[in-house]
Amino acid sequence: MQLTGEMLIGASAMRGTDKPVQAIEAQTGKPMEPSYGGGSAADVDRACELAWAAFDTYRETSLEDRARFLEAIASNIMDLGDALIERTMAESGLPRGRIEGERGRTTGQLRLFAEVVREGSWLEARIDPPLADRKPLPRVDLRQRHIAVGPVAVFGASNFPLAFSVAGGDTASALAAGCPVVVKAHSAHPGTSEMVGRAIQAAVQQCGLPEGTFSLLYGSGAVVGQGLVANPHIKAVGFTGSRSGGTALMKTAAARPEPIPVYAEMSSINPVFLLPHALAKRAEALGKGFVGSLTLGAGQFCTNPGLVMAAEGPDLTRFLGAATEALGGVPAQTMLTPGILKAYQEGIGKLAANKRVEKVAEGQIASGDTQGQAAIFATKAEDFIADPSMEEEVFGAASLVIRCQEVEKMKEMAEKLEGQLTATVLMEPEDMGFARALLPILERRVGRILINGFPTGVEVSHAMVHGGPYPSTSDGRTTSVGTLAIRRFLRPVCYQDFPAELLPEALRDGNPLGLWRRIDGALGKN
Amino acid sequence: MQLTGEMLIGASAMRGTDKPVQAIEAQTGKPMEPSYGGGSAADVDRACELAWAAFDTYRETSLEDRARFLEAIASNIMDLGDALIERTMAESGLPRGRIEGERGRTTGQLRLFAEVVREGSWLEARIDPPLADRKPLPRVDLRQRHIAVGPVAVFGASNFPLAFSVAGGDTASALAAGCPVVVKAHSAHPGTSEMVGRAIQAAVQQCGLPEGTFSLLYGSGAVVGQGLVANPHIKAVGFTGSRSGGTALMKTAAARPEPIPVYAEMSSINPVFLLPHALAKRAEALGKGFVGSLTLGAGQFCTNPGLVMAAEGPDLTRFLGAATEALGGVPAQTMLTPGILKAYQEGIGKLAANKRVEKVAEGQIASGDTQGQAAIFATKAEDFIADPSMEEEVFGAASLVIRCQEVEKMKEMAEKLEGQLTATVLMEPEDMGFARALLPILERRVGRILINGFPTGVEVSHAMVHGGPYPSTSDGRTTSVGTLAIRRFLRPVCYQDFPAELLPEALRDGNPLGLWRRIDGALGKN
Repeated sequence: MQLTGEMLIGASAMRGTDKPVQAIEAQTGKPMEPSYGGGSAADVDRACELAWAAFDTYRETSLEDRARFLEAIASNIMDLGDALIERTMAESGLPRGRIEGERGRTTGQLRLFAEVVREGSWLEARIDPPLADRKPLPRVDLRQRHIAVGPVAVFGASNFPLAFSVAGGDTASALAAGCPVVVKAHSAHPGTSEMVGRAIQAAVQQCGLPEGTFSLLYGSGAVVGQGLVANPHIKAVGFTGSRSGGTALMKTAAARPEPIPVYAEMSSINPVFLLPHALAKRAEALGKGFVGSLTLGAGQFCTNPGLVMAAEGPDLTRFLGAATEALGGVPAQTMLTPGILKAYQEGIGKLAANKRVEKVAEGQIASGDTQGQAAIFATKAEDFIADPSMEEEVFGAASLVIRCQEVEKMKEMAEKLEGQLTATVLMEPEDMGFARALLPILERRVGRILINGFPTGVEVSHAMVHGGPYPSTSDGRTTSVGTLAIRRFLRPVCYQDFPAELLPEALRDGNPLGLWRRIDGALGKN
Repeated sequence: MQLTGEMLIGASAMRGTDKPVQAIEAQTGKPMEPSYGGGSAADVDRACELAWAAFDTYRETSLEDRARFLEAIASNIMDLGDALIERTMAESGLPRGRIEGERGRTTGQLRLFAEVVREGSWLEARIDPPLADRKPLPRVDLRQRHIAVGPVAVFGASNFPLAFSVAGGDTASALAAGCPVVVKAHSAHPGTSEMVGRAIQAAVQQCGLPEGTFSLLYGSGAVVGQGLVANPHIKAVGFTGSRSGGTALMKTAAARPEPIPVYAEMSSINPVFLLPHALAKRAEALGKGFVGSLTLGAGQFCTNPGLVMAAEGPDLTRFLGAATEALGGVPAQTMLTPGILKAYQEGIGKLAANKRVEKVAEGQIASGDTQGQAAIFATKAEDFIADPSMEEEVFGAASLVIRCQEVEKMKEMAEKLEGQLTATVLMEPEDMGFARALLPILERRVGRILINGFPTGVEVSHAMVHGGPYPSTSDGRTTSVGTLAIRRFLRPVCYQDFPAELLPEALRDGNPLGLWRRIDGALGKN
């Protein structure tokens, strides 16, 4: 595929006339061709108008047609072949294995949502049959299904150029729900975005869907990003990025004449709790495992373990010794963008300059000016509590170990933490009592709790929750990874006393779609 | 029961020291004893601290224990006997039949949520079994359930002193979800609130639950209302009332360090579409039926039909003639509060003074100064579109008929309406083509669509949706009436690689609770 630098608005491709965006080759820091003209306010309007025009048709596509559309996108992405892998590697600096894996996750996610669409439980069909003889008043015929909320604005993420960008999780779940999607490409990987965008655009055409089902814009956060969120045709927003970016979109969405939901996955430091018996028994293995999780993908994961809690003592010293040794063998890694590297360096610089913080370990020194050097810091629990700046996410391979004077202090620390995507408990059976006391606190604070694992690695499945209380996300009632994500883009509608011919198929007598439905509250396939 | 005028904070009863609230007897306008001391900021803090302290215990009560608690509340309310009915009638001005019916709805709603709790599908248990041999990476053991979001602030509604107040729909669904509740009583019915509050407080004690499971405060919107929404222990808000009140709470909730969801059911004018063949065939019957719905409960329903659309012509004239005649026989009715009466009179005064609006019918003249006189106005579609003030809800028995120059205009009007709780289509089989074109527009605009009925009368059932796009509610993804409302107070948590003894019962192997669960995506009882 010859990259053109064009936006995709409905079935058209055209060059944006606003300030252009250009990828930087991550390894070299050099600009990559082509440049991508930024979208204007008029382009935003046009994409949103097309999405709105497509909405009523697209949301009523049959389950089978919609599932095939998702599968066609997955096929078209595979058909891009190695050219996609190479462009994505160049733009992101991520290695081939990771990008191939991420492509598998992206297409797997689309195919999983296709299955979910076909199965149809997301419609949540409910029927309360009429009770004509009920006293004092008869009951009417009430039927309910969920429908798509409307066109969705999706923001590509820097750290998942495939799995959380143009055809990523937010797009897949929104399309599955029946929502047209307008994507703002992340400026770090416009070439990857164009390739994937054209794969979706082609699928729209192959499947005979209205052109406004999908559009792709490049450009600035101010014009394209805020413009999308403010556009009256947009009814929900999916975002993965920084807290400042996410909260800015939340403000815009809340200030609209019609406020809309924003699903922003923002920041998390993913605390790891080292319980005493685990530390006593496995300090060295845990130290090594921790460094593996910390440095995966240059630490550029939302679930990166940025905080470790343990009781002070010789076992913690052993853990840190093993971590120090392991980290010393980790080469500096290319980071996604110069901006992310700069923010990372500022973050670790701030920790290093903090008198209450000691640097306990470092990765290998960076060569050139595109790599980040991993680092582990430590501080005391009291100092952490007294200085809220230590709780700020440092996006990259840096972590802060909290030395607690006693084991009990870990519970108090857990209570004080902000909302997180994950919490990890490393324990032995002898730690069971403490774990039992700790878990209810963690349940209130996070979306996913792991026992004896590490938080990086997010499965795309039915039971996954990649979400959590604010500020890890803007809306802890949902997940952005996994099949439950479809619910973010749905709302219930009740149909009262409808004649058979006007009822949506999902709600007709005889259950023509073979759905799980709730009849007078009882779940069944009738 | 001797009313004391005391707040109920956990297991205690105490008199508030802030500016007192006193009920006004609706029929006479005279103050009623006792007065209720307003809660202070310290009282709000104390109630919220107790709720927070109760949360971990209450949210993990067994399904059976929680169901019995809801049933105990229902029993205790019935045990209040006729004293409750009489006090509620006096405070609200609503007749005995209505209040007895509303009590039945309130207790029925609590018992229905008890059934929902026992059935357990709201936990949405999901298990993705581990795949140890999967390549390239094994899959971990992932299990997911929904848990309660935290303590909920509930605001009593003026127009449902029982069914949407202290033990009303918001309280029932929040308690069902596992959330402690702090209620701000509506100042129009503090006596009713105290009686019902004591019934809940007694149930908390009878069931051995932590005292903070329920508290009841009286007082001002500024101190108690805003104070509750701003309190860090409160994690969600249920509100039924005016748009100004609801949006004020939304602002406070969004401005918190940790923003929280607000479920505000605010304002709706519930458009009724008179399709041409229905109007031709049944103009008189429809006119009469419309007036019945319009004047029910003095028009003080969220689903009151405040807007009627029809094509201009002799059939509409017949409809209006029948409505005029019917309305002429409707006595003026006592309204809930002097404030509501005043707002109603201002609302109809504004319509009457509008040169583009004609008054087409009136109910009987009010006697005394506590009654509202029903009224029907009419205007042209173009004038309605040009003057957004006509779309403002006039809470009470007033409706505005929109004369459309042609049938097609009704679709354009539907597109221009704000979000609504309901839309009603009155049609004959010959209107099917037009109805088919109209319904997708209505689906985007409202939460419940009725065919050949009237919107007043909201069933508490599984398929009901009492919600809708902004500004009818603050969050169109939910309902405030019916069993689906439990979802508003839940969020998902994922448990990764948990040992059996730490897993919540709902997620254990062997399905000890006998729940519907999704295993690797497939629904079943295993």
